[in-house]
Amino acid sequence: MTDYTIRRARRGDVGAIVRMLADDQLGATRDDPRDLEQYLRAFDEIDADANQLLMVAASDDEPVGTLQLTIIPGLARRGALRGQIEAVRIHVDHRGSGLGAEIMRWAIDESRRRGCALVQLTSDVSRTAAHRFYERLGFEPTHTGFKLKL
Amino acid sequence: MTDYTIRRARRGDVGAIVRMLADDQLGATRDDPRDLEQYLRAFDEIDADANQLLMVAASDDEPVGTLQLTIIPGLARRGALRGQIEAVRIHVDHRGSGLGAEIMRWAIDESRRRGCALVQLTSDVSRTAAHRFYERLGFEPTHTGFKLKL
Repeated sequence: MTDYTIRRARRGDVGAIVRMLADDQLGATRDDPRDLEQYLRAFDEIDADANQLLMVAASDDEPVGTLQLTIIPGLARRGALRGQIEAVRIHVDHRGSGLGAEIMRWAIDESRRRGCALVQLTSDVSRTAAHRFYERLGFEPTHTGFKLKL
Repeated sequence: MTDYTIRRARRGDVGAIVRMLADDQLGATRDDPRDLEQYLRAFDEIDADANQLLMVAASDDEPVGTLQLTIIPGLARRGALRGQIEAVRIHVDHRGSGLGAEIMRWAIDESRRRGCALVQLTSDVSRTAAHRFYERLGFEPTHTGFKLKL
């Protein structure tokens, strides 16, 4: 059984994270790990914001899983904080190992530690296996997610 | 025709905003404008964060519409920013006036000004009239929105 460490992403992890984002049915057309400049600029912005947690699950200190947790303050639900999860990816060689559930549980626990009233995420309607995975973790598909490209 | 001003919410607007949140099929059980303490604490946190824009549409300086726009940095899509819209409400006396579209267009334009690559939101699956409204504005229902209550 592989041992994973869940930790904040470092600048040196950005290449490995972007390779995971690009190695994906939808991300393949949207991301390209050959030029990291824009990604490093985005990393610096994420890393400077206390409400953004870009995480990796590392095996031998090499990122093999990732997600981003954003803490969003709001007035609704009596001024509740919410945790929002984006960009969940597991390296192809580490799928089926339980690592996805492990890093998701970390994000749920961290949201609870920070006092969030709920955790939310959206998933492309085509990702049916991912939807079953989120439902097994207790998430309910109560919402429709809309996007508008600019 | 009523004239509306779209501006950042002020502390003194919180009561009017919470009344709009509570005057809603879903919000009625979740929000209560009689005790504003938790809402004011949340307002201060939102107001201090440059990536959070809590907006009101005011008529005679009284809030009659509201939404919150959150700017989220991320690595995906070549380090794109995304604009996320939450808590869209229009006062019952001002519905059907085009105000909803006006404040949404403000949020879309502001996301574009800040360099976002997309704007996203989720809407409870029961809000079918709202879904048609978002589609008329150009949003596509490409995602399933999952929530987990903590």
